[in-house]
Parts: sequence; C-alpha cells; structure tokens
Amino acid sequence: MKQPVRVTVTGAAGQICYSLLFRIASGEMLGKDQPVILQLLEITPALKVLEAVKMELNDCAFPLLRDIICTDDAKVAFTGSEYGLMVGAKPRGPGMERADLLKDNGQIFSTLGKVINEVANPEMKICVVGNPANTNAYILMKNAPNLNPRNISALMRLDHNRAIYQLAKKTNKPMTSVKKMTIWGNHSTTQVPDISHTTIDGEVASGMVDSSWANDEFIPKVAKRGAEVIAARGSSSAASAANGVIDHVRSWVLGTDKNDWVSMAICSDGSYGIEEGLIYSYPVTCKDGEWTIVTGLENSNFITEKMKASEKELLDEALTCSDLF
Amino acid sequence: MKQPVRVTVTGAAGQICYSLLFRIASGEMLGKDQPVILQLLEITPALKVLEAVKMELNDCAFPLLRDIICTDDAKVAFTGSEYGLMVGAKPRGPGMERADLLKDNGQIFSTLGKVINEVANPEMKICVVGNPANTNAYILMKNAPNLNPRNISALMRLDHNRAIYQLAKKTNKPMTSVKKMTIWGNHSTTQVPDISHTTIDGEVASGMVDSSWANDEFIPKVAKRGAEVIAARGSSSAASAANGVIDHVRSWVLGTDKNDWVSMAICSDGSYGIEEGLIYSYPVTCKDGEWTIVTGLENSNFITEKMKASEKELLDEALTCSDLF
Repeated sequence: MKQPVRVTVTGAAGQICYSLLFRIASGEMLGKDQPVILQLLEITPALKVLEAVKMELNDCAFPLLRDIICTDDAKVAFTGSEYGLMVGAKPRGPGMERADLLKDNGQIFSTLGKVINEVANPEMKICVVGNPANTNAYILMKNAPNLNPRNISALMRLDHNRAIYQLAKKTNKPMTSVKKMTIWGNHSTTQVPDISHTTIDGEVASGMVDSSWANDEFIPKVAKRGAEVIAARGSSSAASAANGVIDHVRSWVLGTDKNDWVSMAICSDGSYGIEEGLIYSYPVTCKDGEWTIVTGLENSNFITEKMKASEKELLDEALTCSDLF
Repeated sequence: MKQPVRVTVTGAAGQICYSLLFRIASGEMLGKDQPVILQLLEITPALKVLEAVKMELNDCAFPLLRDIICTDDAKVAFTGSEYGLMVGAKPRGPGMERADLLKDNGQIFSTLGKVINEVANPEMKICVVGNPANTNAYILMKNAPNLNPRNISALMRLDHNRAIYQLAKKTNKPMTSVKKMTIWGNHSTTQVPDISHTTIDGEVASGMVDSSWANDEFIPKVAKRGAEVIAARGSSSAASAANGVIDHVRSWVLGTDKNDWVSMAICSDGSYGIEEGLIYSYPVTCKDGEWTIVTGLENSNFITEKMKASEKELLDEALTCSDLF
C-alpha cells in the first residue's frame, strides 16, 4: 500500500463537496491503492456543517481514508498537501454584475494564492472549480509564483463530459464510443465544444451529423447546459461537477487512455495562437502526472474565431482583476 | 464486458439517492466490469427533480451507465430488474406517532410488494433502506410470495460501519484493522452493536476496551448515531447511508473478505433463537451472491437479552401492521 497523500478541498461543506469527498475517500480519484488524508477548508460559519460531513465520512469506514482535518485556516489546510481542489467561491447573487463577481472571487483566490505560495508543496497539483474558474486559477497562479505553473488547472471536464453525452445522444451511440472530444477556451458560455477531431467507433464524428447541428445546436447546448440543469433542479450542478473533478484529477494523475484525450484548462504555452500564460482549455493527453497539449490539429475559421472570442473574454476578465496580481 | 443489469431505485429524487446513484453508475456497487441500467421510481410530484438528476447522470458520461428510466409507475420500475434498492419512504413528521409511521410506510411496502410479486424477476435481490427498514422489508416479503425470501434484506451496514469507526477511534487503530464487527437485531435504537467476537489486528477487541465502555457507551453511541448526525447536519444521514447501500450490495454480490463478515438484516432461519421469518440483522459471510449466517458464536446473557428485546420490537412492529399481510 502506498503512503497516504493529503488532499486539500475548499468550500468543503458545500453541495459539490458533499458529492465529491465521499468519492475521493472511496479511492475513485487517486486509485484504490492510494490512502488519503482530507484537509477540508471552510469559512468559520460553515465549520459546524463541515463537522457533520466529517461524521458521515467517518461513518463510511472507508479503508483508504486515514484522517480528516477540518479548519478555517488556509495555512493548515494547504500544509503538506499534494492536491488542491478549489471548490469554494462566492456565488453570483441577484442583481450582481459579472465584474463584481470577478472581483469578489478574485480577492478570495488572490488571498489563497499567497497562502499557498507560502506554505504549500511547490509541486502541488491544483484544480480550480469555483467560478469564474479560469480567471480564479489565473489569479491564484499570479499570487503563487513558487508553484509550478504547469500544476495549476481549472475544471473543463464537466463540459467535456456534457459534450460527449450530447454527441452520443444525437448519433444514438454509446458514450464509450466517443473519443477525442475537445472543449477550447473559458469555462463560460464562450467555451468552444468542438467535434471536428472527435471520433465515434473510430470514424470521424463530424461526418455523422449536420454541420448546422454541430455549430448551431451542439455548441450552445453544451455551453448553456449549466443553466439548463439549474432550471430543472433549482440549484447548480453538484454531483456532476464533483464527477468532473474526479475525472479531471484521475486522468491527470493516472493517465489518459490510448487513442483518446481530455479537456483541461491549463497555463497556455501559446499553442494555437492563444496568449501565453492564460488559463485556457486545450485537448491534452496525460502520462505520469504530466499533461501534454495535443498539437497539430487543424481548426476551421469558424472554430478559430470562437477560440479567439473566448481568449478575449479571458483577457478582459484578467484586466478587470489586474489590481489583484 | 458483462451484459448490463437493471437496478431499480425508489425515492430516486431524494437526498440519499443523490449520493447513491452516481456511485452505482461509476461501478462502485457491482464492479467496474458491470454495465447498469438505472430504473428510477418516484412519486409523480418528484418526477421533475428526478429529470434533473437524470441530466446530471448523463453529464457524467459514465462508461458503465447504459440507460436511465425515470417513472412513477412501479410496474415499469421493477420489470426485468435484478436489484431493488428501496430507499423511498415517508419520513416521520412532527407529532407523528411511531405506529402511524409504521402503518403509512407499511402501506407503501405492501403495495410495492404486490407489484414486485407480479412483475419482478423472482430472484431479484432487494435491500430496504427506507425506515422502519426491517418491518418494511418484512411487509414487502409477505406481499411478494413469488420472490425468494433469501433475497429480501434491510440495510444494517451503516450501523456496522459506524460501529467500526467508534471502536477504531476508541482504540486508536486504523479502521481496516477492525474485523468481525456485529450488529444484531432491528435498525432502530434497540439494535445490538456487539464487539464480543470482533478482532483488531487479529486480537480480541473486547480485551482492549473496558466492558463498561462496550456496554454503556459504545452500544448507545452507535444506536443513536443517526440522531447525532441529524443534530449536527440539520437533516438525516445521506451520503453515509448511500455508502452503506453500496457496501451492502457489493459484499452480497461480490463476496465478503476472508476472516471478516458483515451485518445484514435478512429473513431469520431461527438462528440464535430468533423467531423464524423476521427480518433480523445477523453477522453473515457472502459468496457467489449468497449470504450465510455466521453460526456458533457464544453470546453473553447481556447481549442475548438485548437481542431478545430487539426481536420483541420487531414482533410488535409486525403486529401493528398485521392487516397489511
């Protein structure tokens, strides 16, 4: 059996984490041979609810769960940790402008970044979930220069999985037959779900659907799926977001399948003409805990324009928060 | 890859199922090589919320999840199914007498039993979770004579896991070192958590704690843990209950570990002097999808008296509902 690793989770008393923590503790994220210590961060008023989550985690007698630390002190939460799942963020309230949301959450991630920079393992792997995820990750990265920037990512896997489902449904194929789905850009409505390079049972997917469906229905359907779930459920996606985190980290750490890739928002190296340093979603393969951007894909003008629009949104978001780094 | 199996889940839009369904779909209950079709039953007013759960399940792109059927028709939900997880039940409202709760839920399980008897696979395996779980299972069994009574069970695994946690905490040992925990009786405050036969790292556990702790603290702590979680959380255990279901079915179907056993409420064969036919919790080993009661354990007078008291409660509960079978 391996030595236990510490996994820090923020916003740990919230709905996404109520779905996430039990799956981490059961070994679904890091493997059935990897014991874990959960280091759970919450704001002070949520510590009581967090204690109840801890009670239930203990009541599962998970063989891999070695300890649970509940704290409102970010230094305690991030010390010694190898994984940081940044779920906590301020939700957008009624009448709140997007710029205000950006600034409020930017402040949270600026503060967390400074603490992480001070206390964390420089090779800690981070997945930002709280929205606006890409810009939050960007602000965190700018405030934590000691960290390896290759290890700071934002969650796109929920969008990626949603896109696989929509294409499988449209073509009436099993989801397992869909490979090489891509989401480019920002985790927002400007994201670019792209089936140009996707295969279904090894065949080119774009040949199996109308281009009008791919461009005019599929893209907005995936990009706006979050709002559709909120309308049906009365609250944001929780269990499916948690599942995206499980998949994101598992692929990153344990590797992607042969002949497939996943979508991750990572620190751009300038690939595909995107501004270097932005936290932008690319198709990546993973091996031995390292991602590699899939290179050499030829994008249509239609997709390229959308990719640039999503890049522009990210540049604007960064500008709004430029006092934070 | 195996052929898909159908798993029926009742009360599917509720909190326990929001934790349960995603773990079933990920393969944690029946194995990573077993595709599943979820047949989800809800009352008509909850179908809208259930549709949102279905959206999120689809948005996970689970490789093993082959189909999701949402229905308010029990006949549809139970047709062709191999597993029935009976989570839905009426909760106890303010000022409600226990006898009223028994009768209301007894009515639900009497009706479901008749439908199951008519449409279900006679070898379907059932785990009742909705309370009062043992008596609900008993009423279901009495109304479904076509079913193999060995395949009707009620959930005790949450109590079993809670007991493991309390003993591990008391002795400062890892939970994985605790084997052969036993819960006897009814899933209620009369249950009998019993460490008499339990081992820790192969040694007799009862020699490692005071008997006053085992009798006066451990037993009520485990039996009343549900209330403690409600007080801390503001609502009933959900994710830990779901985890109990996962563990219960996995052990039943995929087998128990060597040198260990689990607690399941099953149709008594009269073992340990308990009335034959009651749904009573015993220590069991499982192999090839069949449970076997652990025989030959010697119980103290203290434990035996408590076992009889829990049996008496079950007999009284059955009497209260005797018009339902």
